[in-house]
Amino acid sequence: MANQDFFTSELFKELVDDLKEEERFTATYRVEAIDFTEAKERARAIASEQTVECPDSLIAGTWIAERVLGHVEDIKKASDGVYYAVISYLPEAVESDFTEFLNMLFGNVSLLPGIRLMSFELPEAMESTFQGPKYGQYGLRERCGVPRGPILMSAVKPLGRSAKELAQMAGDLALGGCPIIKDDHSLYDQRWAPFDERVSAMADAVREANEKTGGSSLYVANCTGDGLRFLERAYRAEELGAGGIMAAPGLVGFSMVKTLAEADDFHLPIFLHPCFSGGFVLHEDTGISPYCYYGQLGRLSGADAVIFTSFGGRFAHSENDCALIAESLSVRMNYIKPAFPVPSGGMKWELFPRMCRVYGGNAVFLVGGALQTQGPDLAANTRFFMEKLHEAYAQLK
Amino acid sequence: MANQDFFTSELFKELVDDLKEEERFTATYRVEAIDFTEAKERARAIASEQTVECPDSLIAGTWIAERVLGHVEDIKKASDGVYYAVISYLPEAVESDFTEFLNMLFGNVSLLPGIRLMSFELPEAMESTFQGPKYGQYGLRERCGVPRGPILMSAVKPLGRSAKELAQMAGDLALGGCPIIKDDHSLYDQRWAPFDERVSAMADAVREANEKTGGSSLYVANCTGDGLRFLERAYRAEELGAGGIMAAPGLVGFSMVKTLAEADDFHLPIFLHPCFSGGFVLHEDTGISPYCYYGQLGRLSGADAVIFTSFGGRFAHSENDCALIAESLSVRMNYIKPAFPVPSGGMKWELFPRMCRVYGGNAVFLVGGALQTQGPDLAANTRFFMEKLHEAYAQLK
Repeated sequence: MANQDFFTSELFKELVDDLKEEERFTATYRVEAIDFTEAKERARAIASEQTVECPDSLIAGTWIAERVLGHVEDIKKASDGVYYAVISYLPEAVESDFTEFLNMLFGNVSLLPGIRLMSFELPEAMESTFQGPKYGQYGLRERCGVPRGPILMSAVKPLGRSAKELAQMAGDLALGGCPIIKDDHSLYDQRWAPFDERVSAMADAVREANEKTGGSSLYVANCTGDGLRFLERAYRAEELGAGGIMAAPGLVGFSMVKTLAEADDFHLPIFLHPCFSGGFVLHEDTGISPYCYYGQLGRLSGADAVIFTSFGGRFAHSENDCALIAESLSVRMNYIKPAFPVPSGGMKWELFPRMCRVYGGNAVFLVGGALQTQGPDLAANTRFFMEKLHEAYAQLK
Repeated sequence: MANQDFFTSELFKELVDDLKEEERFTATYRVEAIDFTEAKERARAIASEQTVECPDSLIAGTWIAERVLGHVEDIKKASDGVYYAVISYLPEAVESDFTEFLNMLFGNVSLLPGIRLMSFELPEAMESTFQGPKYGQYGLRERCGVPRGPILMSAVKPLGRSAKELAQMAGDLALGGCPIIKDDHSLYDQRWAPFDERVSAMADAVREANEKTGGSSLYVANCTGDGLRFLERAYRAEELGAGGIMAAPGLVGFSMVKTLAEADDFHLPIFLHPCFSGGFVLHEDTGISPYCYYGQLGRLSGADAVIFTSFGGRFAHSENDCALIAESLSVRMNYIKPAFPVPSGGMKWELFPRMCRVYGGNAVFLVGGALQTQGPDLAANTRFFMEKLHEAYAQLK
């Protein structure tokens, strides 16, 4: 899924190092083709499909053919039948629209078999169009009071519980010292736990626990919602005392996340949830690499932390995929702040040593069900998991 | 890609016929499993993952286990290693959020290999939550003045041309009698053709042509944009005289489309574009069937017409896939209006007879490049394509 050969290739290193100075942005695609000639044809087809989408004869000899049409910059053979094609695009064709940026990177060619978006590189000028995370790793550490090392996060669940029951759980997690506590991603505005009631009860419970412990646990409210409701819920969550919000870009769209991240009057860190993204990442021959989808796009859309399904759990990403996601969230990207990788999806304390080795200290470890079923007392379970995390991280150093 | 065996199976017929009377909504998944026992286990895992997402012990004996947890209603073997699992969910868990509906249908399990969402069925009560298209096939026919038979549609392109050049093309297409004329999906708000300037020039050119011909060609403005910009552009397009708007749900999200479709003060038909959707539909073992993604979800989100990449062109859907998309847009769905299928992506007049046989008379045929390169005079090209379309449809009857 991560197409490992690409991320260890010379081509990838060159792209990352050399293209910052260019005027155009580039996208690198994995292209299946029987030989170099076909790979070249397919690369040219991508360059046209993603920009002018018309027969060459319509634009022959114009500035459109020269500048708007994608340029095939490089094609490298990866293995038999597999090539990497680097194509550059004109930033002015995107202006400030993130949706158009996504559209140019992978809009129509997402529908062609044997083409996968591996990564992109932006010229410095464009990185000012996309501001990235408002808080990033450093800001989030400050807010949840964990100056170094991996950060424990847990989820309050399940769907069906009342606001009061959920708040009780959030309070207990905070009493146990859990630095970040989020809603399950299915908690919306259900009649048995309406949004306002849920979020205010949870925020209050976490604040009260913090007052008792002297801690600074954050409550992250799930704000995914239809259209404008997403923004309304995010602002409302801030008013009600939440310490962060969560949204699924697969459902609300990356551009809605960017809209919120860039709003001057919104002051909470943003966590992304990976639901409804699977179509893009599961197959290695189509879709988008996890490096690009969760890492590059998540960070560029303004997320401070990106949840993804880690190796070791119920889902399918390999250790290598996961390491690449973490890398892309913190690698140098001009002045765009690094964001936290949040491995999740069936994590348990027995995995902490391996997770520490793969993710290092700059990550948030999200543990849901395993923490809740460790014993009858959630606060005690949290203390146990915190201890296990400290042990695992201490062994690393 | 369409997993044809499913849509011709007894199971599918039963689902469509029988489940309207139920209280719960159902989703049917294609599940890969080595035997029936594993299929059952995987179905149970889906039912949990999509709802409570927690160990069974946390909810044993509660109403949550009884009602909120998905019910595995049926499992049928399709072929060796492949099963269809029908799972039912509680409508109250979704309330009126389309994002939560999508999330429950396919949020987390989108990330599991070997699971594909094939279709869903709603109880009658839920169809009132989702209003569907405002105009649908009948309303759109009225607006573009084509009372029966397939409707020709063309696109103005390429990216890079000025508003004036694009408007000239739109005017010529309308002079030739093209009933529906859309922007290329890459036309946003670029400095050489800013949104307002482009849309007003195009709308004016089409209106003037209509005055000359006595026709009622519609201009459909691409309004895809970041966050609130999408809605702003759609309302602005109406003000500036556009006859419809286009958006890509892969970029703005289905719920944003629904928000617009349900707005009482917005009065234009909505066309969906398939860019950035490929990840979901290309593989037959994961993602979402084209029947469900373009057909059911497109229509339920409120689209009046859904563009998809047809057989016969540059893209990959089979004739059978395409017929299924068209079917799902017009099949009985309680009182939700039928929407138009819009086959596209490299169509040409030579394909019209075959397209007529597959799509019948209730479809919009979108032809871009082929029409533009047929000869030097766009109006004449349009007349030629209109004639070819009439011929093809006449032969069908």
